[in-house]
Amino acid sequence: MKLLEDRIITDGKILGQDILKVDQFLTHQVDYQLMKAIGERFYDVYKSSGITKVVTIEASGIAPALYTAANLNVPMIFAKKAKNITMNDELLTTEVFSFTKQITSTVSISKQFLTKNDRVLIIDDFLANGQAALGLLDLIEQAQATPVGVGIVIEKSFQTGRTRILEKGLKMTSLARISAFEDGKIKFATADDAAFDALTK
Amino acid sequence: MKLLEDRIITDGKILGQDILKVDQFLTHQVDYQLMKAIGERFYDVYKSSGITKVVTIEASGIAPALYTAANLNVPMIFAKKAKNITMNDELLTTEVFSFTKQITSTVSISKQFLTKNDRVLIIDDFLANGQAALGLLDLIEQAQATPVGVGIVIEKSFQTGRTRILEKGLKMTSLARISAFEDGKIKFATADDAAFDALTK
Repeated sequence: MKLLEDRIITDGKILGQDILKVDQFLTHQVDYQLMKAIGERFYDVYKSSGITKVVTIEASGIAPALYTAANLNVPMIFAKKAKNITMNDELLTTEVFSFTKQITSTVSISKQFLTKNDRVLIIDDFLANGQAALGLLDLIEQAQATPVGVGIVIEKSFQTGRTRILEKGLKMTSLARISAFEDGKIKFATADDAAFDALTK
Repeated sequence: MKLLEDRIITDGKILGQDILKVDQFLTHQVDYQLMKAIGERFYDVYKSSGITKVVTIEASGIAPALYTAANLNVPMIFAKKAKNITMNDELLTTEVFSFTKQITSTVSISKQFLTKNDRVLIIDDFLANGQAALGLLDLIEQAQATPVGVGIVIEKSFQTGRTRILEKGLKMTSLARISAFEDGKIKFATADDAAFDALTK
């Protein structure tokens, strides 16, 4: 997605060897116009897939997932990282390690919101080693729902997440795919939505 | 806001003495249509207030804040509860106690996203004792920005938050105001946006 790649070049900051910081428009301050455009892109790719639920994980996944759900006209569910006293229903739970926070969280979704009739699109802001997406996939499988695809805003293609998700037989749609950080510059691989456009047009 | 009150009556669940659970449409599963309507209501009230930033706190505040920011055509910032390794900028920080999670979190916003020229609208999903809203107000004041108002989706008017915010001289806009839980039924006070409509029409 050209608009997103351009924005990453303008406002993204490379930290150390393998961290990209995009708190200007995605992970802390949020540019709603970009989120809206992202929601429309995921809609283009998944509009004929019979999606009934969009699932993400709090907190940075919520904005792109919300606009995706709005375009697909389905509910959005955000998996929760901390248990609170209102969560008295039966829960689906899994463990997810966050690379940027360096902690393992128990992530959960109330059983009532995912059923075996659901066809689910996973949306997340980043894909690195795939921990969050695979955790969500685990919850979807526990609910015996059908995982249809994984939509990622920014994929770090030099890490293992992509391979691990493709191995599960899921469709991947990364709107920006970073192949390397070279001399402080960001190199992109062909994004999945661009490949999708080439196939369908 | 009638649409919201009706939804609370249909899908809200009262837990114990003073907890309302709305994970069907706001705090876990999110109804984007309702969020959109909420964003439009806050826009109606604040469209002439020169708002430059909408600020909320992760995670349940993000959806209503995002649509509010979209209507006002300004960025949305969500304050973060946990520090992560990409947060290497100077931070504004404060302490917030969460009643539903029973923990105190350090909540932060990067200094660069709030400046003294900003006019800020605080949006949050719930108001009980006002901890989250007052924490955000503290961050806004640290940045020497101007807090303009507080937009709340659901206020529990029998708790202290409303009074504490009004004492700070801020405008309050609660779209649903719960005055009591009586015999398992939810009683509403006049919502601020309905009062606003009565004043302006």
